Amino acid sequence: MINVGIVGAGGYTGLELVKMLLNHPRFRLNYLATTSGDIMVEELHPSLLDLITFPVEEADPELIADKCELVFLALPHKASMGLAKELIVRGVKIVDLSADYRLERETYEAAYCPHEDPEHLGEAVYGLIEYYRDEIRVARLVAGPGCYPTATLLGLLPFIPYIDTSAPIFIDAKSGVSGAGKKLSETSHFVTINDNIFAYNPLKHRHAPEIAEKIAKIHGAEISVNFVPHLIPATRGELVSVYATLKEEIDPQEVLEKAYDTERFIRLRHKPVDIKSVAGTHFCDIYAQRNGKALFISSAIDNLLRGAASQALAAANLMMGLDEGTALPVIAYVP
Amino acid sequence: MINVGIVGAGGYTGLELVKMLLNHPRFRLNYLATTSGDIMVEELHPSLLDLITFPVEEADPELIADKCELVFLALPHKASMGLAKELIVRGVKIVDLSADYRLERETYEAAYCPHEDPEHLGEAVYGLIEYYRDEIRVARLVAGPGCYPTATLLGLLPFIPYIDTSAPIFIDAKSGVSGAGKKLSETSHFVTINDNIFAYNPLKHRHAPEIAEKIAKIHGAEISVNFVPHLIPATRGELVSVYATLKEEIDPQEVLEKAYDTERFIRLRHKPVDIKSVAGTHFCDIYAQRNGKALFISSAIDNLLRGAASQALAAANLMMGLDEGTALPVIAYVP
Amino acid sequence: MINVGIVGAGGYTGLELVKMLLNHPRFRLNYLATTSGDIMVEELHPSLLDLITFPVEEADPELIADKCELVFLALPHKASMGLAKELIVRGVKIVDLSADYRLERETYEAAYCPHEDPEHLGEAVYGLIEYYRDEIRVARLVAGPGCYPTATLLGLLPFIPYIDTSAPIFIDAKSGVSGAGKKLSETSHFVTINDNIFAYNPLKHRHAPEIAEKIAKIHGAEISVNFVPHLIPATRGELVSVYATLKEEIDPQEVLEKAYDTERFIRLRHKPVDIKSVAGTHFCDIYAQRNGKALFISSAIDNLLRGAASQALAAANLMMGLDEGTALPVIAYVP
Amino acid sequence: MINVGIVGAGGYTGLELVKMLLNHPRFRLNYLATTSGDIMVEELHPSLLDLITFPVEEADPELIADKCELVFLALPHKASMGLAKELIVRGVKIVDLSADYRLERETYEAAYCPHEDPEHLGEAVYGLIEYYRDEIRVARLVAGPGCYPTATLLGLLPFIPYIDTSAPIFIDAKSGVSGAGKKLSETSHFVTINDNIFAYNPLKHRHAPEIAEKIAKIHGAEISVNFVPHLIPATRGELVSVYATLKEEIDPQEVLEKAYDTERFIRLRHKPVDIKSVAGTHFCDIYAQRNGKALFISSAIDNLLRGAASQALAAANLMMGLDEGTALPVIAYVP
Repeated sequence: MINVGIVGAGGYTGLELVKMLLNHPRFRLNYLATTSGDIMVEELHPSLLDLITFPVEEADPELIADKCELVFLALPHKASMGLAKELIVRGVKIVDLSADYRLERETYEAAYCPHEDPEHLGEAVYGLIEYYRDEIRVARLVAGPGCYPTATLLGLLPFIPYIDTSAPIFIDAKSGVSGAGKKLSETSHFVTINDNIFAYNPLKHRHAPEIAEKIAKIHGAEISVNFVPHLIPATRGELVSVYATLKEEIDPQEVLEKAYDTERFIRLRHKPVDIKSVAGTHFCDIYAQRNGKALFISSAIDNLLRGAASQALAAANLMMGLDEGTALPVIAYVP
Repeated sequence: MINVGIVGAGGYTGLELVKMLLNHPRFRLNYLATTSGDIMVEELHPSLLDLITFPVEEADPELIADKCELVFLALPHKASMGLAKELIVRGVKIVDLSADYRLERETYEAAYCPHEDPEHLGEAVYGLIEYYRDEIRVARLVAGPGCYPTATLLGLLPFIPYIDTSAPIFIDAKSGVSGAGKKLSETSHFVTINDNIFAYNPLKHRHAPEIAEKIAKIHGAEISVNFVPHLIPATRGELVSVYATLKEEIDPQEVLEKAYDTERFIRLRHKPVDIKSVAGTHFCDIYAQRNGKALFISSAIDNLLRGAASQALAAANLMMGLDEGTALPVIAYVP
Repeated sequence: MINVGIVGAGGYTGLELVKMLLNHPRFRLNYLATTSGDIMVEELHPSLLDLITFPVEEADPELIADKCELVFLALPHKASMGLAKELIVRGVKIVDLSADYRLERETYEAAYCPHEDPEHLGEAVYGLIEYYRDEIRVARLVAGPGCYPTATLLGLLPFIPYIDTSAPIFIDAKSGVSGAGKKLSETSHFVTINDNIFAYNPLKHRHAPEIAEKIAKIHGAEISVNFVPHLIPATRGELVSVYATLKEEIDPQEVLEKAYDTERFIRLRHKPVDIKSVAGTHFCDIYAQRNGKALFISSAIDNLLRGAASQALAAANLMMGLDEGTALPVIAYVP
Repeated sequence: MINVGIVGAGGYTGLELVKMLLNHPRFRLNYLATTSGDIMVEELHPSLLDLITFPVEEADPELIADKCELVFLALPHKASMGLAKELIVRGVKIVDLSADYRLERETYEAAYCPHEDPEHLGEAVYGLIEYYRDEIRVARLVAGPGCYPTATLLGLLPFIPYIDTSAPIFIDAKSGVSGAGKKLSETSHFVTINDNIFAYNPLKHRHAPEIAEKIAKIHGAEISVNFVPHLIPATRGELVSVYATLKEEIDPQEVLEKAYDTERFIRLRHKPVDIKSVAGTHFCDIYAQRNGKALFISSAIDNLLRGAASQALAAANLMMGLDEGTALPVIAYVP
C-alpha cells in the first residue's frame, strides 16, 4: 500500500478525496490535516460516521514527510505554495489543487500575488489528464487545473485548429454553489441564490488567463478569451457553453470523435449535455453544434470531482504508476 | 371602466393577467375563458380564493365582442390567430401573447406553420413598448414579443450601431421553468431539472428568427443571431447574456444611459444583474461590460410579466389611452 | 399623512415593511435606521432601485420621536427593548417585531434573558390580530407574535375546547430559510440546506413557551406543547402541522368555520394547505381533518409577512385608527 | 456468478438497482425489462452511457426463468403479482418492490384491490432486514417494505414496549419528489413543488395500514397510527418524525442503542438527523428525544435506496447466501 495524505480535509474537495480513498485498492489514507486540526474526520463530515474514524491534525511538514509518499493539498492559493515547497524538498510527491502551480510565473503574479516558490514552479505539470498524461507520470508536483478551465479546455481544445483566432471566444459558464466552497458568504446564502442566477466577475475571473495560457501552450494560438461565470441554484456540477467563430464549416461531432476516441472518461453526446448526468463522477460530457461558422460547445463536469478531487486522484494514480482510473467514481447521482 | 377579457386564463400568464387586473383602476375584468371552461377562476387558481369569484367559460367570439372592448389572448400559437381573426372583425381590440402576429409572414411560416390570418398580420404592431410606443397607441392588434426576444432586444438594440455585424452574435439565455408553461413534460418534472441545467434547441429555437427580424427592422442590420436557451432550476425569471464584437471600444454604460435615460421600466445596473431583483415586476434590468472589442450584455426580466403578461398590459394601457404604467407591478418578490 | 419609521431596515422583515409602505395611502415612511446606518435604502436592497430613495441612519431615539408617530422595531431581542423603552417615554407608538414584549416576564426570562423594561412589559399587547383586535386599537406598544406561534395558534386555538388537554400536543413545523434571517450561518448556506431537511432545537425552541402561554391566557388551558421546527429548502413560507387528541369526534371544518367566519385574512381550505398559495400575502390558510379522536391541523403563512411584517402593519393600522387591511398584500407570488 | 434480472428497469428504483449491480461481485445482471421494452438501458438512462450496454425487453416469464435465478420486480402494485405468480412456479426467486406481498390479504384488499395471488401471499417475507433477517435467508419471495414504513418502523419499533398504546401515534413524514416516481403529474411539476411544501393524503395514505400491521405483528400492539406524508422540494431522501406518548420517562438514546448496537446499517445520531447524510446510501440514521412523556423520533433514509432498491438488494443477498451488505452503497452524495 502507498501511504497518502490530505491537507485541507475540511472543505468539499477534501471530503471528496476522503470518500474516494475509502475504496482505493492501493492508496492508504495515512494523514489528514486542516488549519485548526484537533478533530476526528467523522465529526468534521458527519456523513462519514461508521465509515472511517481518523484524527485530523494541524499540517506539519515533518510529519507529512514521515507518513506520506504523496499528499493532496486542498488549500487556498498562497497557503498551498507555502507548504508545498517544504514538502517537495522532503521528497513528498504533491498534487496541489490550488492555483499556485497552474500558471507561468508572470500570468500567476498578474492574477494572484507574488509567487513564493518559483524554484519548483517550473517543474510543476498541469494536471489536465488527457493532455498531459505522460508528463504527469513522471512528475513529482502536479497542479490540478481550475474547475472552469477543465470543462472549458476539454471542450474547446479539439476545435482550436478550426477556429478563427482573430475573433473573440466567449465562454459562458454556470456553476453550482459548491464551487464557491464551504466559506459563508452572502452569495452562497440560500435566500440569495435560490430561484436566482447571476454573472460574477464577468470578463475578469482568474480562470480566464488560465484558459488562455493553456490554449497558447498546447496550440500556439493567441486568442481573446472572454469568460463570464454564473452562479446557479444547484449544489454541484458545472456547465460551460463556449461560443467561437470557425474558419470553415467543419463537422463538430467528427472533430470531437477524432480527439477523444480512446478517452474513457470523456463522453461525447448527441444531445446537449446536462450536469446531473455527470454529478458524482469523473466524466466530462461534451456536445457541439454549429450554425454556419458560429460554433457552440457545451461541456459538463462535476466541479468537485473532475473539476478538482477526482482529477487530482487520477493524477496521483499516474504519478504512482497505477492505472489512471483506479477508484475514480463513474456512477452518477442521478436521479 | 373599460371592459376587458382574457382567453387562456388557465395558464401562468393568464393568472398573472388576472392578478394585475384585480388592482387596475380603469380595466374591469369582464370575461374569462379556457379551452374547457366551466369552472370558477378561484378553483382554477386556488391562490385567488377570497380575492375574486368569476366564471371561466369556453371561448366564444360573439360573447367576447359583447362583453369586451379589449381582450388578451394567452393561447398557444395557431389557436390564437384562429380566434383573433374572428374578434378583430367584430371590433374587439386584441393583445395577442402568442407568436402568431409577431413576425413577417415568411419568417413565421418558416418557423411555425402556415399563417391563417394574413389579412390582419400586416397591421399587427410588435409590442416591445420602448421601441413601438407610438404605433401601439393607435393599434387594434398588438403582438406581445416572446420572452427571450424581449430581454435580448432591450439589452442589445442600443448597441447595434457599434457592433461589427459581420461577426456572429451569441445569445446565451437562461430561463426559469415557468417559461415552459403549465403543461407536464419530462423536462419540467422536478427530478429532471432540480440541481440541473442544460441547453435546449441550441441554435434552433424559434425565438432566434424573431430577434434577427426585429434587429433588421429597427436598425437595418443583417446579423448572424446564434441563440442558445438553457433551462435552470428556478420558477420564474430569465437572464440573457449577449456576446458580440464591437467595431470600436465604446463605453457600454454610456450607450445604455443614452438609450434609456427616460425609460422608467428599464433599470441600468452597475453590477451584473440577477433575476430575483426583477421577479414579480415589469422591470428589465440591464448591465453591460467590455473587454477590448468583446462586448458582454446581461439583461434580466420576469419571463411571465415583462416577458408576457405585464408587457401585454402595458400595451393594452396604451391602446386604450391610459398611462402605460397603470397597474404594472414594480415591487420585486425579493427575498 | 401619519409619519412612521422602521428601525432594522436592513433585514428581510425590514424590507417587507418598506415594500408595503411604498403603497400605503395613510402612512408616510419618514425614518429608516440600521445598526450601521450611512447608506441609502436602495443600496441596501437593490430591488428597490427607482422605487424609493431614502437615507438609512443609525437609530437615534430623539430623532425618531421627532420624525415618527409610530415606529416598527425589526431588531433582535434585547436590542429591541433597549430602544423601545426610550421611545415609549417620548410618546412614540411602537410595533415591536422581536420577542421582547411577547411574553410574561417569567416566561421571557426563562427562555431569553433578564428583561430590561419590565415597566412597559405589562402594557404590551400581543399582536395576534384575530384574538387581540380591540386591545391593539388602544395600545401604544404591540408585540408582534413569533412566526411559528402565529401559524400554530391561528390553527389550534379554535380547537382547544375540544381537545383532551391531558394528552400532549405535537407541533411539527416547517419553515423556509428566510425565517432564519439574513445572517450568514452554516445552516443557511445553500449547500447545507438545498435538497435537505432537518429538525432543529426539537422540543426546545423558544416559540414553544410562547404558544403554551397564549393558549393558557386565551383558553385557560394548561397543555403539554411539544414543538419541533424543521428547516426546508424554500425561501419563504411556513407550514405548521399540529397533532392533538380530541375529547370527542367533532367536525373539524365546522369548528374552523364557526371561529373564522367573519375573518377576511384567514382562508379555510378543503384540501391540505401549501405555502405557495400564501407566500407574498397576509393570509393564513388553514385545513383540518380527523381520524377517530386524532386531530390533524395544517396551517400555512408567509413567515416574513403574516409571521412578521404584515401582521405588524395590521397592528399599526389598528393603532392609528385605520382599517386593519390597509396596504396588506393579498396577491400570492404564485406561480 | 448468480444471474439476476430486473423487471421495471425504466423507473428510478430500476435505475438504482442497475447502478448497484454494476459493482456486485456475485450477481450478474442478465435480464432487463420494461413494459415497452425494445431499447438499450443506456438510452433509457443516459447517465449509464459507457458504463453498460444492455438490451431492455418486454417482460416474459419464460425468458426470465431461463435467464435468472432471482429477479427484482420494480413494478406498480397489481402488475407485480400478475408476473410474480408466473415466476414463482417456474422456480425463480423474487424480491418484489411493490405493495403486492407486503400485507395480510385483508389489509391489502382494503387498501389496494382484490389480491390475485393469495396462494403465495402467505409465504412472502416482509423485507425489513433488521427484523426479518432469518426468514429472508430461506425465503423464495420477499416483499420490499414501503419507503415510509421502512423509516417509520426502524425508528419506532424499539420504543413500542415503552409507549402508551392507548394514545394516538402521529407520524409526520417528508419525502423528496423522486418518491412519487417518474410519472408526470401536476404535483411533481417543478413549478408546483419548488419553494413549496404540502401534506397529501393526510391520515389516509396506504402506508398507514402497513405500519400498523407490522407493529401489531412484531409487538402484538394495537395502536392508532396517524400518518401524514408531505412532499418537499428535494430530489431524494425521506425524513420521518414520529410523535408518541410514553408510559414512563425512559432514556431514548439508551433504547436505541440497545436495539441497534450490532446493526451496521443503522446509525444512531446525537443530533437531529438530516436527509443529505443518508442520500446515496443504505443507511438509516435515527435520533430520539423526549419532553416528559412526549417522545420525538426522527429517522432519515434515502427513499430510493433503503426505502426501495438497496433494501431489496440486501434481501437478495441474504436469499442467495451472500453477506447482507454486498454492494450496498454507504458513501453519501454529500455535499
